[in-house]
Amino acid sequence: MRWLPILTTVRHYRRETATADAVAAAVVALMLIPQSLAYALLAGMPPEAGLIANIAPLVAYALLGTSSALAVGPAAVTSLMTGAAAGALHASGSPGYAWAVWWLALLAGLFSLLLGVLRLGALAQWLSHPVLHGFVAASAILIAASQLRHLLGVEAAGTVLPDLLPALVRALPDAHAPTLAFGLATLAALWLARRHAAALLRRAGWPAARAALAAKVAPVLVLAAATAASAWGDAAAHGVRVVGTVPAALPSWTWAPAEAWRWEMVQPLLLPALLLALVGFVESVSVGQSLAARRRERLDPDAELRALGAANVAAACSGGFPVTGGFARSVVNYEAGARTPLAGLWTAAALALAAWQLTPLLAPLPQAALAATIVVAVLGLVDAPAFARVWRYSRSDFTAMVLTLLLTLTAGVETGLAGGVLTSVALLLWRHSRPHIAVVGRVPGTEHFRNVRRHRVQTWPQVLSLRIDESLTFANARFLEDWIAAAVAAQPAVRHVVLQCSAVNDIDASALESLLTIEERLAAAGVTLHLSEVKGPVMDRLQRSELPQRLAGRIHLTHHQAVQALTDCPAQDVSGGAERTGE
Amino acid sequence: MRWLPILTTVRHYRRETATADAVAAAVVALMLIPQSLAYALLAGMPPEAGLIANIAPLVAYALLGTSSALAVGPAAVTSLMTGAAAGALHASGSPGYAWAVWWLALLAGLFSLLLGVLRLGALAQWLSHPVLHGFVAASAILIAASQLRHLLGVEAAGTVLPDLLPALVRALPDAHAPTLAFGLATLAALWLARRHAAALLRRAGWPAARAALAAKVAPVLVLAAATAASAWGDAAAHGVRVVGTVPAALPSWTWAPAEAWRWEMVQPLLLPALLLALVGFVESVSVGQSLAARRRERLDPDAELRALGAANVAAACSGGFPVTGGFARSVVNYEAGARTPLAGLWTAAALALAAWQLTPLLAPLPQAALAATIVVAVLGLVDAPAFARVWRYSRSDFTAMVLTLLLTLTAGVETGLAGGVLTSVALLLWRHSRPHIAVVGRVPGTEHFRNVRRHRVQTWPQVLSLRIDESLTFANARFLEDWIAAAVAAQPAVRHVVLQCSAVNDIDASALESLLTIEERLAAAGVTLHLSEVKGPVMDRLQRSELPQRLAGRIHLTHHQAVQALTDCPAQDVSGGAERTGE
Repeated sequence: MRWLPILTTVRHYRRETATADAVAAAVVALMLIPQSLAYALLAGMPPEAGLIANIAPLVAYALLGTSSALAVGPAAVTSLMTGAAAGALHASGSPGYAWAVWWLALLAGLFSLLLGVLRLGALAQWLSHPVLHGFVAASAILIAASQLRHLLGVEAAGTVLPDLLPALVRALPDAHAPTLAFGLATLAALWLARRHAAALLRRAGWPAARAALAAKVAPVLVLAAATAASAWGDAAAHGVRVVGTVPAALPSWTWAPAEAWRWEMVQPLLLPALLLALVGFVESVSVGQSLAARRRERLDPDAELRALGAANVAAACSGGFPVTGGFARSVVNYEAGARTPLAGLWTAAALALAAWQLTPLLAPLPQAALAATIVVAVLGLVDAPAFARVWRYSRSDFTAMVLTLLLTLTAGVETGLAGGVLTSVALLLWRHSRPHIAVVGRVPGTEHFRNVRRHRVQTWPQVLSLRIDESLTFANARFLEDWIAAAVAAQPAVRHVVLQCSAVNDIDASALESLLTIEERLAAAGVTLHLSEVKGPVMDRLQRSELPQRLAGRIHLTHHQAVQALTDCPAQDVSGGAERTGE
Repeated sequence: MRWLPILTTVRHYRRETATADAVAAAVVALMLIPQSLAYALLAGMPPEAGLIANIAPLVAYALLGTSSALAVGPAAVTSLMTGAAAGALHASGSPGYAWAVWWLALLAGLFSLLLGVLRLGALAQWLSHPVLHGFVAASAILIAASQLRHLLGVEAAGTVLPDLLPALVRALPDAHAPTLAFGLATLAALWLARRHAAALLRRAGWPAARAALAAKVAPVLVLAAATAASAWGDAAAHGVRVVGTVPAALPSWTWAPAEAWRWEMVQPLLLPALLLALVGFVESVSVGQSLAARRRERLDPDAELRALGAANVAAACSGGFPVTGGFARSVVNYEAGARTPLAGLWTAAALALAAWQLTPLLAPLPQAALAATIVVAVLGLVDAPAFARVWRYSRSDFTAMVLTLLLTLTAGVETGLAGGVLTSVALLLWRHSRPHIAVVGRVPGTEHFRNVRRHRVQTWPQVLSLRIDESLTFANARFLEDWIAAAVAAQPAVRHVVLQCSAVNDIDASALESLLTIEERLAAAGVTLHLSEVKGPVMDRLQRSELPQRLAGRIHLTHHQAVQALTDCPAQDVSGGAERTGE
């Protein structure tokens, strides 16, 4: 059951559930057709590959997935990453390119499977939210920029802005008017549909839910119109680049030939594939989790990893390219009423039908129209307010965010993502290495101790009360040594130092040695070191060390007891709240 | 004053202080002569370089240093690192070797100066105690092993055990008896001196302090005896390798010639030099701090970095090799009564005299005797109990410790040190990424909440009280999401989740988004999220976010108030203390 959740579903599959699934499937399929063609363009693959890329993965996910609503298939960011990684090695359209994409899908799938089996889903959390925001925004910008050449009907190569923009500017003069016309018209139509379709339908008396759903399907109508117009006016003859004859295709067994099994062919794809697996997993699992929560269901992240892994292996072996659980499609699937993972099977069937019978109709579809679909889709991914939000909330997170954005735009997706992760880890370590230490005093008439800088509290000249707001590790142990050395050197009257450990969740071996060193040095200066409010698990470990014996002072249960035991003279009042540097 | 502490000292220099300093200087000089010759051997430099390496650095440190007792000069570990780094590029004794050593000293000095000026002394704390223990132990073993060939009087090259040991075993048959005799005799004599000299002198009626001090000087007598014996028996004629004619040398301006200023010559020395700077700084500052504390003085780590930097630059430019504040010499300096950094100037003068007048006497000194000095010195560095201590206290620290030890022994000093640092950082991040979360209940009749697994407490079916024992960051945010999702899915009766944040010292942007996601998902399932006991600085930042508005529940001052506000039905008793997985 744990490894093949589908069995549970099938045993309880009833007719009404089946109907609900089938309806949802039809709606999703209609929405997926244009999207899939567009993402194929983005990944540098032939259009039919976009349709095919959905089918086998949907089946694989239906068998292994745990989310009842998640719909897998090509997605904007993963398609961009695919195009960037493969394009860095081979020219799009060349056999080398096709096999690079095949390897990417296969490796991404194997990485996901491996991580899932090893239950390492947690790895994905190293992609922090700010880094992801920055990365997705940058990707959207890169994607939109890369589509401009199709909208303008010009040649302009480049995977990063520094290459892309100059190329576009140089190409601007030979922009092709009819192509541009198709592009802008589609862009406008899609934009209007996205903005107003739902409202119009509601005004036409449709129930809100169904209106919203119908609006999601609008793009397919827009593209149908564009295709009709192009066929009627014979746009191709006027030099408008069209999709052209798409062979009716069905998923077929695909396996790289011997010459594609060389290490120098695979090696450069390893990092891109790993990042594809992680990014795909993060997007997929965050969609799945939020949909599952609405039904108070629970998603097993590691099962999801295995399912996505299988989906990508399936994509590779059936002639597709890397896939993941897309946001838009999953939400539509959910809102259209999908009840079980089997809905995916129905969607797969519908798309197979499309790939088999519909492709001839696609010939006159202008590529500019597809480009417009992509632009509208990805610009929805940029979460501009998030930047303002993070700036207000935390400068260091903002740094990581902007750095990722700029790196991705200028140095490419892998560098951007890797650089972002390293930056956020470095910032995490940096913050951890300079913990907040507060001198605390007693709130008059209570047993509570608070920061002397924030509150009006009582202190005693011979007792230095410190609260350390961080776990003590090798990374901040010497910081603590220096801090205490300075504080004691500054107050010759001090005879006792009491460390309030209520916020110390861990003390590692280095910090333990540092505490002993501090104890030693204080003793040499005639000062005793005490601890208070040490947490249970920390205390358990300290008991296994020589600290309790070595400590001249005691480990007090509460800070209040410690201070009571050490003070004999009256307290002095400290007026606080001047600076606000911590509680 | 801050940049040239010496001025302060000179203004208050009195005769009695001067006498104290001079006496200490004489004692230290006597101890340093054999050590310096030995460490020169270890660094692959001519013996006189060992003496010279003390002089200019001592002067430089006296001018800039802040420790009244620290004595700088060649040290065991830094000499080993020097020999390893230079030996990896050139054959010892070749001009290339000499210039590699020159670059190491210069670069290590410049790195220290740079770090000191940028006030980045804190960088050194990334060398955790376990990593340092493992590294020093491994270095000591490597040093001792490398000296065996001198004790046996054979040729056996190699900087790591896998090379060194087989070479020694192969060379064993041609061990040179007379050399071995000298080596073992010296070894025994030094060992006895170290163990019993002080006791004997005390029994002879010396005051304990002076006896201990005299014992420290014993090695110079042992070596004098060895030299005399070798001269009397004309050991050299019997094939015993001796120091030979050492040119009377004084520090002289040394600057690398043009051909040594090539990037490919410098580049491979950058990492070794940086590690030399850091290791030297850590050894030096930890000695300095503990000596300073005894007089309730305070060491400025960044001033120390600048002083050590200057000392190493001085070492390079005067024909020496990398130096640091050694442990033994500093303690002797302190116990011999050095009062001010000027004591270093006196030591320098004494050593200059030795290097100028004494060297002819050193010719007959057998290298085996020097090797014995090194072996005895370094075996004192291995802190075996530390391994047992760390094993008892923390398995993850022990892992880093042993890994560093093995890496250093088998792959060399740089790899060992770098690998150790990376391991300890990885383990730190790993622990941080899986925080301890405790379900808490109320201790009957109190306002205190404790872990249900450790204490007999009261809980309420509709309220889930959780205490998170870690700062919330991107590295553990998704862990929290999953944890709460699982907990709520497991308890359908739950209507409220209250997070006690008393141990949460930071909430970064990712964790903030996660809290909002959790809030959303819980709301979708009809559960409200509450926070309690949020710390001042954390609260200040939360106020700048939309969380307070978005939160359906409230942020309660104390956990008790939160629970009181949310419960209407009677509590159920929970018998706890079964498992001990956290307070």
